[in-house]
Amino acid sequence: MDEFELIRRYFAHVGADRADVRLGVGDDAALLEVPAGMQLVASVDTIVAGRHFPPGSDARSVGHRALAVNLSDLAAMGATPAWAMLALTLPDADPDWLERFAGGLADLAKAHGVALVGGDTTAGALTVTVQIMGFVPRGTALRRSGACAGDLLAVTGTLGDSGAGLALATGSLRTADSAVAHELIERFEYPTPRVEFGLAARGIATAAMDLSDGLAGDLPKLASASGLHAHVDVERLPLSDALQAIASTEQARAWALSAGDDYELLLALPRQHHDSLRASARQLNLRLSVIGELRRGNGVSWTLQGSELAHPVEGYDHFRRASTQITD
Amino acid sequence: MDEFELIRRYFAHVGADRADVRLGVGDDAALLEVPAGMQLVASVDTIVAGRHFPPGSDARSVGHRALAVNLSDLAAMGATPAWAMLALTLPDADPDWLERFAGGLADLAKAHGVALVGGDTTAGALTVTVQIMGFVPRGTALRRSGACAGDLLAVTGTLGDSGAGLALATGSLRTADSAVAHELIERFEYPTPRVEFGLAARGIATAAMDLSDGLAGDLPKLASASGLHAHVDVERLPLSDALQAIASTEQARAWALSAGDDYELLLALPRQHHDSLRASARQLNLRLSVIGELRRGNGVSWTLQGSELAHPVEGYDHFRRASTQITD
Repeated sequence: MDEFELIRRYFAHVGADRADVRLGVGDDAALLEVPAGMQLVASVDTIVAGRHFPPGSDARSVGHRALAVNLSDLAAMGATPAWAMLALTLPDADPDWLERFAGGLADLAKAHGVALVGGDTTAGALTVTVQIMGFVPRGTALRRSGACAGDLLAVTGTLGDSGAGLALATGSLRTADSAVAHELIERFEYPTPRVEFGLAARGIATAAMDLSDGLAGDLPKLASASGLHAHVDVERLPLSDALQAIASTEQARAWALSAGDDYELLLALPRQHHDSLRASARQLNLRLSVIGELRRGNGVSWTLQGSELAHPVEGYDHFRRASTQITD
Repeated sequence: MDEFELIRRYFAHVGADRADVRLGVGDDAALLEVPAGMQLVASVDTIVAGRHFPPGSDARSVGHRALAVNLSDLAAMGATPAWAMLALTLPDADPDWLERFAGGLADLAKAHGVALVGGDTTAGALTVTVQIMGFVPRGTALRRSGACAGDLLAVTGTLGDSGAGLALATGSLRTADSAVAHELIERFEYPTPRVEFGLAARGIATAAMDLSDGLAGDLPKLASASGLHAHVDVERLPLSDALQAIASTEQARAWALSAGDDYELLLALPRQHHDSLRASARQLNLRLSVIGELRRGNGVSWTLQGSELAHPVEGYDHFRRASTQITD
C-alpha cells in the first residue's frame, strides 16, 4: 500500500451516510440525487497554509475550518448542506496529520449530515479546497440582494473573537488568562457555521451573507447587491466577554470590524420580524444583535455615539487580505 | 481596483450562458436547477505546477487542462457537463497570465456549453482545482463496475502521445520534425475530453473510465471494480503516426502504457455492440480500438504477440506518480 492508497483510506468514508448518494468515492465522478422541488446550492472555498491559517496549525482545526467556511456559505443562503468534495494538496502524507485532518473534517460533516462524495489528493504546498453542495426549496434562497430601505441590519453571535484568537495563536497577543485565551483561539480554530439559523431566517430575512472578511469588508457587498446604503452604529457591535477581558473596547471593535474569520451571519430584516427571528436565535442559544439599518442611497456609514467615523478601522489584517473570493 | 478585483473581472462571465443558472458568480453560493429525471454527476480534480504541468507552461494550456481533466471524468460517466467551479491559488495576479488562463478555460467551457458558476482565488503556490457538475438520466451512468466476462476492452483515440508531448515540452526528448513535435505537445497541452463519445457509449458500454494515469495504472481499477480479469494484447494499443515517427515501437508502447495524461476513454463493450459503437466513433472522427477482453478472475495480464509480459512497462513516469485521486 503506497502513501496515496493510505490517503484514499482516510477519505473513503468521511461524513454521513446518505441515501441520495448513489455512487460516492471511488469512480470517475459521484452520482447524486437532488430532491424534487429543490434548487442545488453550490460553493467552493480554499484555505492555504500561511494565508488562512498559521503554518503548523493542528490538522484537526484545518480539516474543521476547510469544511466550516463552506458550510457558512450555505448557511448564508438558507440552504441545507448535503455533499462535499475535497481537493487536498499537501507536501507529504504524514499519517498522524491525515488522521487528525480527516477527523476534524468528518466530525463537522457528521454534525451537519454531510457526506464526502469525492475528491482529489495531490502533492504540493498545503492547500485545502472544499466544494459543497446543498438544497433550498425553489425560490427561497437568501441572497445578498433583496434588502429594503428601513430593514434592520443584524448579526449573529459576537464579532472579533476569531481575530483575537488568531493573534493569540500566533503569539502576537498574550494573556495570563488561559481560559479566555482558549475560548478565543477555539473561535478561530473551530468556527461554528450558522446553518440552523440560516434555515430559520429563510422566508424572514430579506438578504444575508456570511462574515468571512470582517464587517467593514463584507457589509459594502450586501449594500451594493441590494442597491442601498448601510448604516452601522459601531457601539452596537456584539462583543464577547472573553474579547472584552483581553482588549480595550477600541481594539475589540477594530477586530470586530476588520479581522475576519468570524463566520457569523449578517442579515437584513424587516422590523416587524425582528422579535420572531430573535426568538428563533434564542432557541438555538445564539445571540442576534441589531447593529444598524438599511437606507435609500448607496455606500456604508458608521457612527459611534452619534458621531460619524470616516474610517471605522485604521489597519486591516493583511494576514487575510491577500485572499478574495469570486463567490464569497 | 485592487489586484483581486481584477481577478474577479476575469472570471465573472466565463463559459456558456445557461438558463438553469439562477444565480452564478457574486453571491455566497450559486443556485442551480437540475432537470427532472436527471442525476447530478460531480467530480473534482487539481493540477499543480511542477506535478501535472511544467512550471512556466502557457497559462492558456493550464486553463484548458484544468477544465479538460474534469470534463474527461464526466465523459467517462456518459454525463452531459453543465457547471464548473474554480479554486485558483496563484503566487501573483499577472494580468497577461490571467487573461490567457481565463481564455483557455473559457474556450473549452463554451465548446461544451459549461458555465463557470463560482470560485475562489487565493494567494499561494500555483494550484488549480476545478469542480464540475453535469447530468445523466437516472440510472444510465457509465461506471467502472458493470463489465461482463467476454466483453471487449476498447479505447478511444491513440495512447502515449501526451507522454511524448510532455517529454518534448520539457526538453527531455528532441526531434527535428517540428510538425510532429507540435502535434504531440498539443496533445499534452490541449487534451480533448471525449464527452460526445461518452454520451454515445451510454446504454452500450457496460463499464468505462478515463485514462489519466496510463493504461497500466488505470486498467486494474476497472478490472477490480467489475470483479473481472482484464487481458490486453499490447500490439493492439493504438499509436499515432506522430508518436511512431519519433519513437521506437517499444518506447511508444511504454508511453501508451504508463505516461498518463491521454484522457482517452477505456470501455468494456459487449461484442455484439462493437460495430455500432465504432460507427458512432467514426461519426465523431474518433478511432475506437479493441485492445483486449475481460475474463473471469481478477488482476490484469498483458501479452505481446502471444507471449506473456510479467511487467508491461519498466519505468513509470514519476512526474505524475505523486498524484492520486480519491475519485479519479
